[in-house]
Amino acid sequence: MRGTATREDIARVVARLAEVGADAHVSAGKHRTVIGAVGDREIIQELPWEAFPGVERAVPVLKPFRFVSRDFRPEDTVVEVGSAKIGGGHFAPIAGPCAVESRDQLFAAAEAVVAAGARILRGDAFKPRTSPYAFQGLGEKALELLAEVRQEFGIPFVAEVLDPRDVELVGAYADLIRVGTRNMANFTLLAELGRQNKPVMLKRGLTATIDEWLNAAEYIYKEGNHDVVLCERGIRTFETATRNTLDISAAPVVKAMSHLPIVIDPSHSAGYRRLVAPLARVAVVSGADGFMVDVHADPENAEVDGAQAILPIEFAALMEDVRALAEVMGLRL
Amino acid sequence: MRGTATREDIARVVARLAEVGADAHVSAGKHRTVIGAVGDREIIQELPWEAFPGVERAVPVLKPFRFVSRDFRPEDTVVEVGSAKIGGGHFAPIAGPCAVESRDQLFAAAEAVVAAGARILRGDAFKPRTSPYAFQGLGEKALELLAEVRQEFGIPFVAEVLDPRDVELVGAYADLIRVGTRNMANFTLLAELGRQNKPVMLKRGLTATIDEWLNAAEYIYKEGNHDVVLCERGIRTFETATRNTLDISAAPVVKAMSHLPIVIDPSHSAGYRRLVAPLARVAVVSGADGFMVDVHADPENAEVDGAQAILPIEFAALMEDVRALAEVMGLRL
Amino acid sequence: MRGTATREDIARVVARLAEVGADAHVSAGKHRTVIGAVGDREIIQELPWEAFPGVERAVPVLKPFRFVSRDFRPEDTVVEVGSAKIGGGHFAPIAGPCAVESRDQLFAAAEAVVAAGARILRGDAFKPRTSPYAFQGLGEKALELLAEVRQEFGIPFVAEVLDPRDVELVGAYADLIRVGTRNMANFTLLAELGRQNKPVMLKRGLTATIDEWLNAAEYIYKEGNHDVVLCERGIRTFETATRNTLDISAAPVVKAMSHLPIVIDPSHSAGYRRLVAPLARVAVVSGADGFMVDVHADPENAEVDGAQAILPIEFAALMEDVRALAEVMGLRL
Amino acid sequence: MRGTATREDIARVVARLAEVGADAHVSAGKHRTVIGAVGDREIIQELPWEAFPGVERAVPVLKPFRFVSRDFRPEDTVVEVGSAKIGGGHFAPIAGPCAVESRDQLFAAAEAVVAAGARILRGDAFKPRTSPYAFQGLGEKALELLAEVRQEFGIPFVAEVLDPRDVELVGAYADLIRVGTRNMANFTLLAELGRQNKPVMLKRGLTATIDEWLNAAEYIYKEGNHDVVLCERGIRTFETATRNTLDISAAPVVKAMSHLPIVIDPSHSAGYRRLVAPLARVAVVSGADGFMVDVHADPENAEVDGAQAILPIEFAALMEDVRALAEVMGLRL
Repeated sequence: MRGTATREDIARVVARLAEVGADAHVSAGKHRTVIGAVGDREIIQELPWEAFPGVERAVPVLKPFRFVSRDFRPEDTVVEVGSAKIGGGHFAPIAGPCAVESRDQLFAAAEAVVAAGARILRGDAFKPRTSPYAFQGLGEKALELLAEVRQEFGIPFVAEVLDPRDVELVGAYADLIRVGTRNMANFTLLAELGRQNKPVMLKRGLTATIDEWLNAAEYIYKEGNHDVVLCERGIRTFETATRNTLDISAAPVVKAMSHLPIVIDPSHSAGYRRLVAPLARVAVVSGADGFMVDVHADPENAEVDGAQAILPIEFAALMEDVRALAEVMGLRL
Repeated sequence: MRGTATREDIARVVARLAEVGADAHVSAGKHRTVIGAVGDREIIQELPWEAFPGVERAVPVLKPFRFVSRDFRPEDTVVEVGSAKIGGGHFAPIAGPCAVESRDQLFAAAEAVVAAGARILRGDAFKPRTSPYAFQGLGEKALELLAEVRQEFGIPFVAEVLDPRDVELVGAYADLIRVGTRNMANFTLLAELGRQNKPVMLKRGLTATIDEWLNAAEYIYKEGNHDVVLCERGIRTFETATRNTLDISAAPVVKAMSHLPIVIDPSHSAGYRRLVAPLARVAVVSGADGFMVDVHADPENAEVDGAQAILPIEFAALMEDVRALAEVMGLRL
Repeated sequence: MRGTATREDIARVVARLAEVGADAHVSAGKHRTVIGAVGDREIIQELPWEAFPGVERAVPVLKPFRFVSRDFRPEDTVVEVGSAKIGGGHFAPIAGPCAVESRDQLFAAAEAVVAAGARILRGDAFKPRTSPYAFQGLGEKALELLAEVRQEFGIPFVAEVLDPRDVELVGAYADLIRVGTRNMANFTLLAELGRQNKPVMLKRGLTATIDEWLNAAEYIYKEGNHDVVLCERGIRTFETATRNTLDISAAPVVKAMSHLPIVIDPSHSAGYRRLVAPLARVAVVSGADGFMVDVHADPENAEVDGAQAILPIEFAALMEDVRALAEVMGLRL
Repeated sequence: MRGTATREDIARVVARLAEVGADAHVSAGKHRTVIGAVGDREIIQELPWEAFPGVERAVPVLKPFRFVSRDFRPEDTVVEVGSAKIGGGHFAPIAGPCAVESRDQLFAAAEAVVAAGARILRGDAFKPRTSPYAFQGLGEKALELLAEVRQEFGIPFVAEVLDPRDVELVGAYADLIRVGTRNMANFTLLAELGRQNKPVMLKRGLTATIDEWLNAAEYIYKEGNHDVVLCERGIRTFETATRNTLDISAAPVVKAMSHLPIVIDPSHSAGYRRLVAPLARVAVVSGADGFMVDVHADPENAEVDGAQAILPIEFAALMEDVRALAEVMGLRL
């Protein structure tokens, strides 16, 4: 309460808490009175406390999400994506081109990443682009090529969905459906994904707090789909030496707060090819459950994000380090 | 180019520029060589320059958007929303409840804001909520009530759309369709809005640069809908004393870069009732073309964002100041 | 407390609170136990609660500063700077060159700003520059020139101090001593300024929260110097269209939290000349008690920050608006 | 140049460049003219280009620092701190209490970290505290205790200096003098440290870009002291789950841009004990040259930052992992 709050102001808050079945603990200090509210957090947090006379600020103490928290489920969730597992000691290297551009480009990249040890292929059919004049993806044609690659190399794949109207289409092909950073708070899309049964990878919003990200996961989870993989991909800060700032602390923080697995995307975090290998190694020892990197056999001619794609030979060298580090950490690849 | 770039590296960049019909200006300094690229910006900016050997960084000098820039159209765009105008010296006060909660709540707020001088009513039918457990809006029922209010008080209204599948529905009722901050980069939704003919208000993403915001406006504009109003509503920073940080400089910056009108949302920027009036006054003298404030006759019982809603009596007092300030600035209300 | 906290963990926290003379209110929820601590805030906040077993997080409810808060002193502090007053309804226009570069430059700017209605002159003797290769100021020579100008035009002046060893020197000349944004948390310097008797202007750190800023003011205040003026000058965010992001909400927020006056610096916030006048107008209606703008008669040849200096003729035009807006707001210039 | 720039505006910029001995490359596009400036970067970057009529924006292409860049010195700098080395393949574990609080506390921590394999001891005599009411350090008494520990255990130590007047004092005792995050841009202090001969550890400012940080290192380096170690300690972002956001990408970015060694501070980045070990492991594989962690035998009773200190037993376990990871990475501890 403010220093100027009256007895009536305090009584009004206490009365409203009582109305919704919550307890009020009133502590009168020398300068201020503090009221602790104990009860159902969803109800208490929804009330507009700062609109009450005399209230200075409502400070939430508990988290707003429920099912995705460690409190709700103490053991690690392990998400199965075709033949691959993510979480619970299983570390998943995910690799491939940012976007599917052609049959040749996709097969070249897929062959290379499978040979080097990737467990899941990435490759997008629909691309959200900042500029309306940029390449927007091959659409269903790309999904068909990805399914062909899966058949050929026995590797499951992940692809992004942008529009709630495409969930069924992408889900008919992909082993893991990705929600991109720009759509993390597209609650319509999240609810749609929660009502189908393919696993979902939820990228963190460029500007989302970890709490908001877990709330977004809750949107999917509470609709009935429990196979959610989180993906940290850098947040927006003032630093411009990298495209975004990889928040590597998110890995141990998320593992403490939630039972869901988390993977790291070094390519989209950093935005520059030479930063990808160091940040992928970092992922292995951070507590994360996987990483996802862009690999392109001819990045100079890539349609999308060539600047951050590593070459097949660089990916193979990285996987050597990854195997050694995973062994130190006791992780299964 | 990096300090270690070879002649071949430089020649390769120059050759690629020539391939796409652009000119290369090579400046060899003592430590570094800098290559200036001159040609079609959309083509040059899409190429993955950092993927070329020896390239350190590509620094864009020109802006990526075209139609929404002042270069393309030097005079101010004036957007007509029913009987109201926004831009070109017309300052539009927009006010009303955050969400439509009931017939009584809406009519009480509408009557008050019309009496005080608001030119457009706000009131939402669909609400994107961080928590899946919060009130999500009354849907079409709310749109019907808003249309009834328009009939009764002769005031046009703005309402948010969340899902591309609802564009037709919202457009059938509203005078101005709003894209919320979480959907600024929902390019599917933007393209849909560009293909219908109701004016669109595009809120700035919580973390969007002004360039990205204007790019998003370009998505709508290039599809054929030229009635776009920008809305600054605070950006995410480290400061927590306010819900977001109102970037008031965006008003003069946008007016210099673009011909589109811009309005300010003090309520969602600040998040606290007592900050709304000062920030609304600030909007009037900043170069902006309007403001949008939450007004609720009973904020303690509001379902959504009650903490930031001002009372009808406070709105009336604010409008007194607004009239005096608008006169100093030579603005028509 | 964490969900896994034991009874012993809870007892330990309660016992420690008792040791320091504080009360503990224990609320046992379904998933979590929350302990409210009531007592001397300085003592409780200094204890390393997160180091205790079972503690998840300590959430401070009260502010850490005391003397600069409105709770401590409800009425506005008015700071007198020579013939000028700041605060309590007195709005102070401060203007002049960023740095003193020469006698002619200083006199030209001073004559112009006095004629247009500035009440305090700005002009620096010592400049903190990001690059060690840039102009660093004229030192004591500049202070002598400023004193000469004061004699000639009867206007008091503000100048920055960088080094605790220069406090005496700057204080011997200036009417108001400024602490720059880079030194806001230079506690050695703050304490030194608290022990002398010239008024101090404390700029907000580029990245400081309002709480941290008020804490820094507390460092000065508690040493005995109560004449502290706060200066908002933009914070660092991801936006690059402006040099920094002016946090205009800081004006009403600070006025609510503290009795100290606050001025706005549009020049260093924006970094571009054409944004200065709109942001200075904004300051007048925001609740702030003054503004400080860079004025230079020949900005193309300025040694420091020429890009953000406005011309004398632009300043005169701005002051016309300022007079009209101040009248609307009931402020004395 | 702006779209509205005239021929005279362009000629004026070209003429000014010629005056300072620089070349101008003028590229006239359809909408805009771009002028490339080639010459001495210190001179060109200091000119107030945005103050020239018709100029829209000056975009720097080259970095403002010189001596600390890889261009100036391609091979790694190895800094010797007593018996320890940092850089060039030498990875330095630095550990100890945040502040020296007592003889017993310091000896307990020092004995434990030496036994576990730390190569440099940390422990501060002067503490910059946000609140003026918090413990400020033991001063010279602490430095004497640290020197005693060095004698006893044969381990060099690092300590912070806050005031330019204390440089001589701290330098008389410490093997490595630290500049804290709040003083990164205290150029007076940096210049003083550049003129003495003890190695300096320069922490990154909470809000400093990597460019600004390297510029601050340049301040020290150009005065003649070439033994500078950079320390990444987290930057300020919107995320509040950690005290700051560790920018781990800074390690590979700095190694590419500069020859100076860099260490990581997981304790002050994270702010919570359980995050320290994962982030210290991350440091080993990131390309960094060391880490610095807070270790305290009794964190519940620590005067400063107990929440982020790990126990001696936790540090010993961490060092087991560190040895295995360093071996994979080919680093000497």
